[in-house]
Amino acid sequence: MRPLKKPIILVHGGAGRLRNKQLKDYKLCLKDAAENGFRALLTGGAVDGVVEAVKTMEDCGFMNAGVGSVLNIHKEVEMDAGIMDGSTLRVGGVTLVKKIKNPILLARVVMEKTDHILLAGNFIEELGIKLGLKTWDFKQHPQYVGKVKRYNELYSKLLKGEVKHLQRLRKLLEKVGELIPETVGAVALDRDGKLAAATSTGGYWLKLPGRIGDSPIVGAGFYANNVAAASASGIGEYILITGLCRRAVELVENGLPAFKAASRSIDYVTNIFGENTAGLIIVDVRGYIGSAFNTEGMGRALLSASHEKVKVALFKYERLI
Amino acid sequence: MRPLKKPIILVHGGAGRLRNKQLKDYKLCLKDAAENGFRALLTGGAVDGVVEAVKTMEDCGFMNAGVGSVLNIHKEVEMDAGIMDGSTLRVGGVTLVKKIKNPILLARVVMEKTDHILLAGNFIEELGIKLGLKTWDFKQHPQYVGKVKRYNELYSKLLKGEVKHLQRLRKLLEKVGELIPETVGAVALDRDGKLAAATSTGGYWLKLPGRIGDSPIVGAGFYANNVAAASASGIGEYILITGLCRRAVELVENGLPAFKAASRSIDYVTNIFGENTAGLIIVDVRGYIGSAFNTEGMGRALLSASHEKVKVALFKYERLI
Repeated sequence: MRPLKKPIILVHGGAGRLRNKQLKDYKLCLKDAAENGFRALLTGGAVDGVVEAVKTMEDCGFMNAGVGSVLNIHKEVEMDAGIMDGSTLRVGGVTLVKKIKNPILLARVVMEKTDHILLAGNFIEELGIKLGLKTWDFKQHPQYVGKVKRYNELYSKLLKGEVKHLQRLRKLLEKVGELIPETVGAVALDRDGKLAAATSTGGYWLKLPGRIGDSPIVGAGFYANNVAAASASGIGEYILITGLCRRAVELVENGLPAFKAASRSIDYVTNIFGENTAGLIIVDVRGYIGSAFNTEGMGRALLSASHEKVKVALFKYERLI
Repeated sequence: MRPLKKPIILVHGGAGRLRNKQLKDYKLCLKDAAENGFRALLTGGAVDGVVEAVKTMEDCGFMNAGVGSVLNIHKEVEMDAGIMDGSTLRVGGVTLVKKIKNPILLARVVMEKTDHILLAGNFIEELGIKLGLKTWDFKQHPQYVGKVKRYNELYSKLLKGEVKHLQRLRKLLEKVGELIPETVGAVALDRDGKLAAATSTGGYWLKLPGRIGDSPIVGAGFYANNVAAASASGIGEYILITGLCRRAVELVENGLPAFKAASRSIDYVTNIFGENTAGLIIVDVRGYIGSAFNTEGMGRALLSASHEKVKVALFKYERLI
């Protein structure tokens, strides 16, 4: 495999089951994300690229992030997002976001305007609003009715004892695979050789209020330095325990090409927590990319200076390059 | 250095400046924590040991955790805690805790009663209360008056431009070292060779509301598996970015003795973020221990089956064994 020419953007729409998805819209959203991210990469840099790509997926409604976010057990939306600038090691994460339309923009506020790297709750949302970020009310969104229907289906499974209060998450996921998170994410390498990673999610159906997953946590759901950038998706608890994205980036630091770092770090999760648990994308500073997942599928889209148009892939037998 | 006999408990009272502390009370609290933790280790196991040690430090009022927690910019207490059972890789973390007296007990609830590993906010606090955990009102606590005085001093520095809205946290810390977090933590190896780690903190003075540091995040503020257990203290943002405790434990997995793993992982933080940023304690399954810090001091206390009584150390020239 030859390295790609800079700049490069690689996005994912979440690892999980794809069979019940509106695949046409899902693929279109991946394509738009890569194209919008690539445009921002050219005019700005790696950070702008991943922000724009993730924002596109937050807005499209066919991903579990931003306006497409699923409902927790209290029938509410609580969104997480995180971003890392590999050239400065600056980080921003936000969690339990309820009223800001684009959590990834709020994560960027945390990274650029505060001394902290992870903020939750009302204060940071109000700060975001004062800084001009758009709000939204998920109950007013056209998708809300459909979401409540899905919520009720899952909730009735819970009541029938088919779910048992979410005990044994993995067993639950085997039964009702749609519960698997479909976090979105992007990694980018810009013309100056700078790297960035970003991730955004709505969590998963019926999660407890206040649940924080891997997506806003540096080293877990995302990580970037001057060697590589990675973004993950899957069961957040497992990704957090294994420190998945830092692990993948460190494998590249230790000499592995990006595609091997991706598969080896996913193997690490599979060995501990089993199949149907995680996926990730990665790009390194030399222009190599990688993606790996132990789920049925993971939507990915790639655009680089080596390509004329976006390449989209969903399943394992579909390759990006 | 010979390995210690099992069981072993090692606690810390936070890395930072010790010059303004009431050192007699601080040392007494460390000693009590090690003794109470050791007793729980003997009757229960590693998890009981670290919980009891951390609970003791949360209750004593001379540590920045539990009832001794500092105030955020809204003059409120927001506490974090985390725990990991190395034998099962189960994890519990709680963040932004306001009304539960012992956040470490709430972290244990997350680990043992939920499918999640990190929870914030009202829901988990209410669950803790329903399960019998004690509440407290920090404004009714005898220390509140003194805390508000300290808050006002720091806040006036902020207004005078000496702090500049917490920009450049590190420069700020050089000026007003008392801002450095004094997270507490414990690591333990029980008679069965099982390991556990726990951490608890009030964060730092003048932090933004909703700020989440390293203490509730697995791999950052704490980590344990069947090889080693570590607990960290310092500037949470840096510990989170570097994944400090997972790093130290992985160094032991790669063959380093615990004391070398401690110093090498602290060197890693120092190289990126400078001095006065972090400290950690670690115990491995063979019975070796380690502690390292790039701050003026870090209170530590050790008790094991090799010892008749607790050994307490504060500065670098004081050794535990």
